[in-house]
Amino acid sequence: MQRRIAFPKIMARRIPGCLKLLKDAMTDWTQRPLSAIAAGLRRGDVTATRLAEEAVDNHQRSDGALQAYKSWDGPGALQQAAAADQAFAAGADLGALQGIPFSVKDIFGVAGFPIFAGSPKQLPKEWEAEGAMVRAIRSQLAVIPGKTHSVEFAFGGLGTNPHWGAPRNPWDAIEHRAPGGSSAGAGVSLCEGSAIVAFGTDTGGSVRVPASMTGNVGLKTTKRRWPTDGITPLSSTLDTPGILTRSAADAALAFTAIESALQGAPAPAIAPLDVRGLKIGLTGSHFWDRCQDDIAGVIEDAIAELSVAGAATLEISFPEAIQAAKTMGAGAVVAAEGYASLQEYLPDWIETLDPMVRVRMEDGRKAKATDYVLALARMADLAASAAARLEAVDILAVPTVPLTPPKIADVADPDAYNLANSRALSNATVVNVLGLCALSMPVGLDHAGMPVGLQLISKPGDDSKLLSAGLAIERVLGEGKDRLGPVPNYK
Amino acid sequence: MQRRIAFPKIMARRIPGCLKLLKDAMTDWTQRPLSAIAAGLRRGDVTATRLAEEAVDNHQRSDGALQAYKSWDGPGALQQAAAADQAFAAGADLGALQGIPFSVKDIFGVAGFPIFAGSPKQLPKEWEAEGAMVRAIRSQLAVIPGKTHSVEFAFGGLGTNPHWGAPRNPWDAIEHRAPGGSSAGAGVSLCEGSAIVAFGTDTGGSVRVPASMTGNVGLKTTKRRWPTDGITPLSSTLDTPGILTRSAADAALAFTAIESALQGAPAPAIAPLDVRGLKIGLTGSHFWDRCQDDIAGVIEDAIAELSVAGAATLEISFPEAIQAAKTMGAGAVVAAEGYASLQEYLPDWIETLDPMVRVRMEDGRKAKATDYVLALARMADLAASAAARLEAVDILAVPTVPLTPPKIADVADPDAYNLANSRALSNATVVNVLGLCALSMPVGLDHAGMPVGLQLISKPGDDSKLLSAGLAIERVLGEGKDRLGPVPNYK
Repeated sequence: MQRRIAFPKIMARRIPGCLKLLKDAMTDWTQRPLSAIAAGLRRGDVTATRLAEEAVDNHQRSDGALQAYKSWDGPGALQQAAAADQAFAAGADLGALQGIPFSVKDIFGVAGFPIFAGSPKQLPKEWEAEGAMVRAIRSQLAVIPGKTHSVEFAFGGLGTNPHWGAPRNPWDAIEHRAPGGSSAGAGVSLCEGSAIVAFGTDTGGSVRVPASMTGNVGLKTTKRRWPTDGITPLSSTLDTPGILTRSAADAALAFTAIESALQGAPAPAIAPLDVRGLKIGLTGSHFWDRCQDDIAGVIEDAIAELSVAGAATLEISFPEAIQAAKTMGAGAVVAAEGYASLQEYLPDWIETLDPMVRVRMEDGRKAKATDYVLALARMADLAASAAARLEAVDILAVPTVPLTPPKIADVADPDAYNLANSRALSNATVVNVLGLCALSMPVGLDHAGMPVGLQLISKPGDDSKLLSAGLAIERVLGEGKDRLGPVPNYK
Repeated sequence: MQRRIAFPKIMARRIPGCLKLLKDAMTDWTQRPLSAIAAGLRRGDVTATRLAEEAVDNHQRSDGALQAYKSWDGPGALQQAAAADQAFAAGADLGALQGIPFSVKDIFGVAGFPIFAGSPKQLPKEWEAEGAMVRAIRSQLAVIPGKTHSVEFAFGGLGTNPHWGAPRNPWDAIEHRAPGGSSAGAGVSLCEGSAIVAFGTDTGGSVRVPASMTGNVGLKTTKRRWPTDGITPLSSTLDTPGILTRSAADAALAFTAIESALQGAPAPAIAPLDVRGLKIGLTGSHFWDRCQDDIAGVIEDAIAELSVAGAATLEISFPEAIQAAKTMGAGAVVAAEGYASLQEYLPDWIETLDPMVRVRMEDGRKAKATDYVLALARMADLAASAAARLEAVDILAVPTVPLTPPKIADVADPDAYNLANSRALSNATVVNVLGLCALSMPVGLDHAGMPVGLQLISKPGDDSKLLSAGLAIERVLGEGKDRLGPVPNYK
């Protein structure tokens, strides 16, 4: 496994003062852990303005190649950063996200930015109104430098978009590979260093799949824990806001900050569980059926390392997984809800739909109400039984994405697209259908040198415990940047 | 207005001892208020066995004419009553329903009884399993003498059923008039004195309409307040368990007893509001559009009496009412959910459907998922705005049923049936669609001598306050038995 060369320890022992200076000079602030940045801002070691300038520089350096953002506002970011600095100077600490560059997927309304939701035409003005999630990070004076690309109306797992192009997956220096979707630019924005945290949404994997494909952490919260107002709807049954970060530690901190803002009162900090005795559920069914051997190997190695560190592994039966996908498909739940939304709110956007999106939306248009109703009823039954099975473990551990992020050129054909898309989403969608929460963490590289995500799944409402398990696991396996090594120098 | 002749007060002053003896002799225990019966059982003035015997006698006397029950078990009732008596004797007081005859609509599973749900064929054994509502009254040792008739799968407001016939509305001595539905036998069971409280379910008015048509009180609780497990489903979105009683006072007591059993802890007793200052909302729209003049007159008189007693009336705008019915219809919400349930759980019951039920279920079979999805979304929006409007008042007061219960012979024709059915439900269904709670109280007789119900509507979760308002109103207007006079001697 590739590892970044650590700063020579011998220097640290001999010349600690020099070390600090060197380290500061060597490491951009945007590359540090969120906790270190937040502490630095409060100590005055760095300003929100300097952070934002770095983020803008990083963006300018990378954007030609990566194209993470649909809308970018560098001057706006600097203005927001100045406001955060002024608040610090006035003694106002509004929360851990104050002054933190935070990218937002372009299906959230954000004041001052147009919204396209991946469509070719700007959405009407009222869609720009900020909902509870954006207000939550605004209330802490987070800095929003821009809005990241999305698959059209968030309906697709690869990150492709014929109107605006797919952001490039930074992990392949030569080929244009899928960045994952539908939060296509979210993971990329973290890789390029223009954001420390990224908002995505996850209806069937749209946070975890791009997180996995770009070597980041992705959190899909329990449905209804975080509100979806102010977000262009795809599926009222399954849409869930989520965050992408570079580490589980960052995710835990951002999660607590967001929960505090939503509740208007401090949420408890997330402490790591003890990896010794951590009950990791393993299951043979569904999640491995369409998984590449190299990816399965990376996941198995990670689990073996956790086992050596003292985690307990426990085989559990989880037949709900395979039934989940079939059930939702039979009722065309997402497609019907998505098509209904378009019909009702954005009828003029239907005719220009990406053909890859349209063909699935059409299933929704044609779906029968009775099939839809039955699918929801069966999903509720499956969810109850899945939650009961997960009582036996702290987390279920499976691969997030069972295939190498495909080359964009290889999924131009509709059949190839459909195959790759459904496969990319197959392990993630189960979690949405069963009403669970999940965290994807980068744990290695596949045969193509592309990141592999380990998906940790917990029962509904156990979001905090899920993050605690993620912290424990990250302490053993290391953060993505150390475990996966540096992102290649793409051209 | 007809009034029962009160017991001469002069006697009461002169010979109080004699009065008590006389009263006891004159009044059957089953005719007394629930509070008096409960107190009598605890003082030993009456036993559950005597009550059950009376209920059985009442039933035997009336059943030939009324046909309230699909299944009746007199010996079983006496056995249950003996158990309640034994518990009393052993010092066990399990709640206000101990020893109280309580009829149950034949769409609830009740151990020891077959279940038909209004269909011609007995449902499979598993449908007899008791859900939380039946368990709640069982836990207090209520006495279930039988299961009352239902419209097939609870889908109809008049109470008709081609397989088993419609119970007779006791208020017409000559003609066979609709008893209201779908809880067709529930109100009739109270009239004949075989039950003190009756379980019904209310998807679009199925508790309030039969309550109104039979001169009883009907409570439709807020959706999801009371669980629906163990009840044959019609609409998962709208199905709501409810109770019918002879007075608001009985309803308040039964409500508290049921809530206590469901929670496993004593629920607070319902106290009447002060009628002086009670804010009664009035609205011109929808509820009066299809209302007979004589019925409107009865409702207006009742409101005028309340006004004289010190209640404040307040005109409010309530446009959601008219939109509610249209919206639900456009998505065929009940029909689609009902048909889906049959398809999934009882496919062999489809071909034998009552043609009046089938034609509406067919709308559900044909409905599009997108229309259904949109209807639910619009209903949620309408519900939010209706709840906000009701903040201004304690209750909204409207007619429950805007027409005289039709003669069964007059609704044999499908067109006539559909017209009368939709009109009978039109004021009640609004409450379900908007997610509100409501109480129907008998307040007079129409031109045909049939009962007229006043529907009180409150915002979601205000069930207790709604009952408190009902108590206040009943104190002014009197209970149904006093205000409406005796039920005619039918033949």
